[in-house]
Amino acid sequence: MDFLDEPFPDVSTYEDFHTIDWLREKSRDTDRHRKITSKSKESLWELIKSLLDAWSGWVVMLLIGLLSGTLAGVIDLAVDWMTDLKEGVCLSAFWYSHEQCCWTSNETTFDDRDKCPQWQKWAELMTGHAEGAGAYVLNYFLYILWALLFSFLAVSLVRVFAPYACGSGIPEIKTILSGFIIRGYLGKWTLLIKTVTLVLAVSSGLSLGKEGPLVHVACCCGNLFCSLFSKYSKNEGKRREVLSAAAAAGVSVAFGAPIGGVLFSLEEVSYYFPLKTLWRSFFAALVAAFTLRSINPFGNSRLVLFYVEYHTPWYMAELVPFILLGVFGGLWGTLFIRANIAWCRRRKTTQLGKYPVLEVIAVTGITAVLAYPNPYTRRSTSELISELFNDCGALESSQLCDYINNPNMSRPVDDIPDRPAGPGVYSALWQLALALIFKIVITIFTFGMKIPSGLFIPSMAVGAIAGRIVGIAVEQMAYHHHDWIIFKNWCRPGADCVTPGLYAMVGAAACLGGVTRMTVSLVVIMFELTGGLEYIVPLMAAAVTSKWVADAFGKEGIYESHILLNGYPYLDVRDEFTHRTLATDVMRPRRNDPPLAVLTQDSTTVEDVETLIKDTDYNGFPVVVSRESERLIGFVQRRDLTLAIKNARQKQDGVVSSSVVYFTEDAPQLPASNPQPLKLRRILNLSPFTVTDHTPMETVVDIFRKLGLRQCLVTRSGRLLGIITKKDVLRHMAQMMNQDPESIMFN
Amino acid sequence: MDFLDEPFPDVSTYEDFHTIDWLREKSRDTDRHRKITSKSKESLWELIKSLLDAWSGWVVMLLIGLLSGTLAGVIDLAVDWMTDLKEGVCLSAFWYSHEQCCWTSNETTFDDRDKCPQWQKWAELMTGHAEGAGAYVLNYFLYILWALLFSFLAVSLVRVFAPYACGSGIPEIKTILSGFIIRGYLGKWTLLIKTVTLVLAVSSGLSLGKEGPLVHVACCCGNLFCSLFSKYSKNEGKRREVLSAAAAAGVSVAFGAPIGGVLFSLEEVSYYFPLKTLWRSFFAALVAAFTLRSINPFGNSRLVLFYVEYHTPWYMAELVPFILLGVFGGLWGTLFIRANIAWCRRRKTTQLGKYPVLEVIAVTGITAVLAYPNPYTRRSTSELISELFNDCGALESSQLCDYINNPNMSRPVDDIPDRPAGPGVYSALWQLALALIFKIVITIFTFGMKIPSGLFIPSMAVGAIAGRIVGIAVEQMAYHHHDWIIFKNWCRPGADCVTPGLYAMVGAAACLGGVTRMTVSLVVIMFELTGGLEYIVPLMAAAVTSKWVADAFGKEGIYESHILLNGYPYLDVRDEFTHRTLATDVMRPRRNDPPLAVLTQDSTTVEDVETLIKDTDYNGFPVVVSRESERLIGFVQRRDLTLAIKNARQKQDGVVSSSVVYFTEDAPQLPASNPQPLKLRRILNLSPFTVTDHTPMETVVDIFRKLGLRQCLVTRSGRLLGIITKKDVLRHMAQMMNQDPESIMFN
Repeated sequence: MDFLDEPFPDVSTYEDFHTIDWLREKSRDTDRHRKITSKSKESLWELIKSLLDAWSGWVVMLLIGLLSGTLAGVIDLAVDWMTDLKEGVCLSAFWYSHEQCCWTSNETTFDDRDKCPQWQKWAELMTGHAEGAGAYVLNYFLYILWALLFSFLAVSLVRVFAPYACGSGIPEIKTILSGFIIRGYLGKWTLLIKTVTLVLAVSSGLSLGKEGPLVHVACCCGNLFCSLFSKYSKNEGKRREVLSAAAAAGVSVAFGAPIGGVLFSLEEVSYYFPLKTLWRSFFAALVAAFTLRSINPFGNSRLVLFYVEYHTPWYMAELVPFILLGVFGGLWGTLFIRANIAWCRRRKTTQLGKYPVLEVIAVTGITAVLAYPNPYTRRSTSELISELFNDCGALESSQLCDYINNPNMSRPVDDIPDRPAGPGVYSALWQLALALIFKIVITIFTFGMKIPSGLFIPSMAVGAIAGRIVGIAVEQMAYHHHDWIIFKNWCRPGADCVTPGLYAMVGAAACLGGVTRMTVSLVVIMFELTGGLEYIVPLMAAAVTSKWVADAFGKEGIYESHILLNGYPYLDVRDEFTHRTLATDVMRPRRNDPPLAVLTQDSTTVEDVETLIKDTDYNGFPVVVSRESERLIGFVQRRDLTLAIKNARQKQDGVVSSSVVYFTEDAPQLPASNPQPLKLRRILNLSPFTVTDHTPMETVVDIFRKLGLRQCLVTRSGRLLGIITKKDVLRHMAQMMNQDPESIMFN
Repeated sequence: MDFLDEPFPDVSTYEDFHTIDWLREKSRDTDRHRKITSKSKESLWELIKSLLDAWSGWVVMLLIGLLSGTLAGVIDLAVDWMTDLKEGVCLSAFWYSHEQCCWTSNETTFDDRDKCPQWQKWAELMTGHAEGAGAYVLNYFLYILWALLFSFLAVSLVRVFAPYACGSGIPEIKTILSGFIIRGYLGKWTLLIKTVTLVLAVSSGLSLGKEGPLVHVACCCGNLFCSLFSKYSKNEGKRREVLSAAAAAGVSVAFGAPIGGVLFSLEEVSYYFPLKTLWRSFFAALVAAFTLRSINPFGNSRLVLFYVEYHTPWYMAELVPFILLGVFGGLWGTLFIRANIAWCRRRKTTQLGKYPVLEVIAVTGITAVLAYPNPYTRRSTSELISELFNDCGALESSQLCDYINNPNMSRPVDDIPDRPAGPGVYSALWQLALALIFKIVITIFTFGMKIPSGLFIPSMAVGAIAGRIVGIAVEQMAYHHHDWIIFKNWCRPGADCVTPGLYAMVGAAACLGGVTRMTVSLVVIMFELTGGLEYIVPLMAAAVTSKWVADAFGKEGIYESHILLNGYPYLDVRDEFTHRTLATDVMRPRRNDPPLAVLTQDSTTVEDVETLIKDTDYNGFPVVVSRESERLIGFVQRRDLTLAIKNARQKQDGVVSSSVVYFTEDAPQLPASNPQPLKLRRILNLSPFTVTDHTPMETVVDIFRKLGLRQCLVTRSGRLLGIITKKDVLRHMAQMMNQDPESIMFN
């Protein structure tokens, strides 16, 4: 009679936009594991299968590392080429970027590595004139045209093929990792389209970065490889372990910082991060980093995006400007989050949201028109950051390094004393100030449009510009006033005491920290960029200050704010719930509500159950001994119930509407005249989670968070009183924080 | 009538050698926090107090960092001096170590930095003869004498003043962090005595390191500063957050690796590690590292213990010897753990344990006698490791770098091609092989004696020796057979292709990994030592291989093995429980046991309660509606019950033995003739944790682990059936793993 051999169908046991039950997933995996272990003793083949199963986790990590490293390399190369395509083309081979074109050229001299005859700007190629106002206007026009073309392609591809490919993806990945289901968000189409449109979006010159989307791309890779192994594809809990590791690999390739990637995954995105995942994440991050290094997209065999080496230590007094940069970062974070969320809410609620293509075109147009005239905004943002981070060496040709040289300088190349700024530096300062304002404003409108867009790079750019300006100011002050009391001790004339590049780096860390509220992973990423423990203290000081300042204005970082905006059911581990409410205040049914929909163990008919299923939309029903005693015996999932009754009606003779459903161990022997009973104990969860009505809500929140529950039953002295779902918990938390509880939309 | 204003006395609510209840600690902290927040609106003074309270966590971290960094610096300096004292003395200032003595001397030449007239060996000082057999014997004799004196002092101090100061302390700290109480283990005396005896033990030349004990010292600092703030001193849960961070600071100063320290705390020792603790640990680790750097005990303004810089990359083919070193590390780990545990068990169970002083003296004597003749064991182990890690530069005078130089060498200093080994290298190899065997054997007997002893350094030494031997072998093979197919591609004649120092480092990582089973933190510590991402792959390969090999022979690392040996109630997060047992199989009372000791809500008299307390030693009792219905209403702690009754009998009129104890909300109005009732609802925990009897044990284990429970009640359809304590869970797990369940001794 127990025909339901597999009461839980293996795949898609959860509906779209629903929360998974971590405990159930875990126990399903233990069952599977137990089955394989016991089978492995039977034959050699089963033993091999069990070994393969045990190793599949590492294999998945290896594959994720390889694919995400490769994709990151391809993206880097393509972005390089297409960014340069906006300005000109390489005559010797049109698929070379500006740098590659001139590197392969023999006619380049060391002084002017950027200028070689093979590389021609569009105006030069089309009209033959490289200089002059006409050429400038033509180049300007073509720059805008290319930018519009790229962004139009990007937004169209996203709209048509994969709507989930837009944005940075990190808020959604955080939600998914916490146990939410969004089907297709990490699918093959999303992977393909996000990779292609990311290249287009970045190349179009918009104020956005590729770092966040790379995390999304890596997670898509993770999801892709999960489907190769039933261990991961059929278990939503195990799948999330893989995705956590994939996120680490994503950051690892985005910055070339494997340890930072692991800590980012741990600190920022992951929800359930057991030690095993820590080891595997580290492995995946390493493989990804080394794959990327083998592809060598930056052509310098460096792993990292912005490699810097500084030669001078920092001094205690410099902590003051560093902390000020931290304050600036915190303020920028607050401003950005508030303004961006307000704009995104406007997009969601007004007509604006209906014209995503137009919006992207308009923003691209404005960006291109304003960016071209300023050399610091014309180039790609990562090049800009790279230049701002750099220390001015002796051979530097950049405008930012236009210092007035001491004629009798005879120092080694590495150690250049502080010098007065030349006219180039002053004009650079003006341009940087304009670039700062431009970046601040345009980024607010860019992040959240319907194209792939990360905000690591724009945030870092804002911070790096501000930092470099402060750095140059301090440097000039120290040079011209080295007899001031604060400079006296550490800055003798002729010494190299201020490194403006370090200020840029500190500023970048501060701004990134203000927006995302990362601390440890941020500092570790920055530390991996420089490779010197020396500068951890300045970075830490700025990151912590920025976090404190930003937290004073609002606890949520940009990702949490977007999660809230979208109403995802995300139970943040960082929110401390400190209110004095009890489970009885939160549970349903409330006072005056109809009583809780329950089933009894031996007195409900098939018809009653079907009516209950039709009339309600709950995910499951508690089963009690009888309506009078209200003693709880278990919990049954709506899905299982529907399936079981459907099956029974089709396949089991004698099950009719008036059949009694039994959840007891043994159905009584009924006279033959009664309809055949339906025994459903197999689908009954005999260990539902319960708390008493007096349990403080802080404990309930803790239990939901740590055990990953979907719902929890409330009892008083053994009597069932009500139920609390994750949505109830989140709504209660929102209410307690004076937010709109209706903003939590999913279950 | 509710006279019990403070039903939970704040301090020492737990007995010694008992487990804390994490949920209760957490909710007590929330209460405290709520109180402070609501008060802070009352006056400015309260607001300041609340701000101070919010910042106290960071203040504690700062203090921990400062003190543990200072102590580590002092220990380093003292060890340096006392280790050299065994050989000789500085005439210009007796408190100088050999190195300091010769650095301050003006007569030192660059070639022989180690030899200066101010530093005299004992024989030279006493007899005037520096050379000759007589001088050698006298030096040998005095070396042994000093060693015996130091170790005798160390063991005596430990025995007399602080028995808890012995061993590495990490197993106990792991247990304490998981929620166990061992009073005095982190006390002031332990701090003082451990610091002093650690210096003595390391200086005595025993095969032990200072890294593990430094973690203990840092945790003692943490505990010390906890007592300054009632927030931490009165809450065992919050205190453990501070201790986790202190452990990170300890590793940070032990190796000069702040990030590695944080990951060590996360991966190896901590139990409950919220994000807030991550940030604070990082801060404490940084402060500690920078304090140590300011003290600059190594005189090279480097943060790290073994700073190395390699100049050549590694090649794919080298992964084979690296993986072999990993296998060696795993085997060494297994051997060491088995042998050491067997020896420690022998010490516990036989007469041996009764003579700790004699044991230490004997082992020191044997160590000193055997160590002196071999130059690689005579010096301190960390110096040995440092030399083994080093690449042979052009100026290296060590015997290990006695290569036959190519006469027409005209390369830069950094890049020395492979050369044939000279006689010095061959004799060094022999001595190293002997040192390896000696270290392997003596370390097994040393770890676990009644003196402070860490095993990071001895394990690393074993691995470094093995690695260096393998490295030299590969190097010579590559030099002499560079036409072999495996060397052909990467090792042309005249190239510098093998770095034996790197092999030593990989070997050290492998052996440390085999013993402790760390992976990520180990690799990060090693990475911070070299500062190059380059070598992460070799290190990772060795660490992971070593873990796999060692895990194949037994899941427990050395710390877990010692926890098991001592019978501490430690619920390892890494143990996966995969058996098919249910809560009903584990709960007490068992079949045939007397029924569960329960109280009823309104029919137990004071006398009944007192009898129950006297007759049983349970930590608490469930309270039910009545013995017939067995409906659970709450749980009452034994301690609270005893206190409440004692108080009531003393202070409350009319409470006599026949008074009825009421746990209900309202006691009924009794006739005046009846004795005064005793109302105890205030001490009743109305939200005890329950599971049903059908709950799989894997879920129960998960709940105990994640929520940090002490006990859990078992019900079936609202009826109380039994109770499961942490001890029951651990005993059940031991039983399922075919271990002796009686080995779990504490509750």
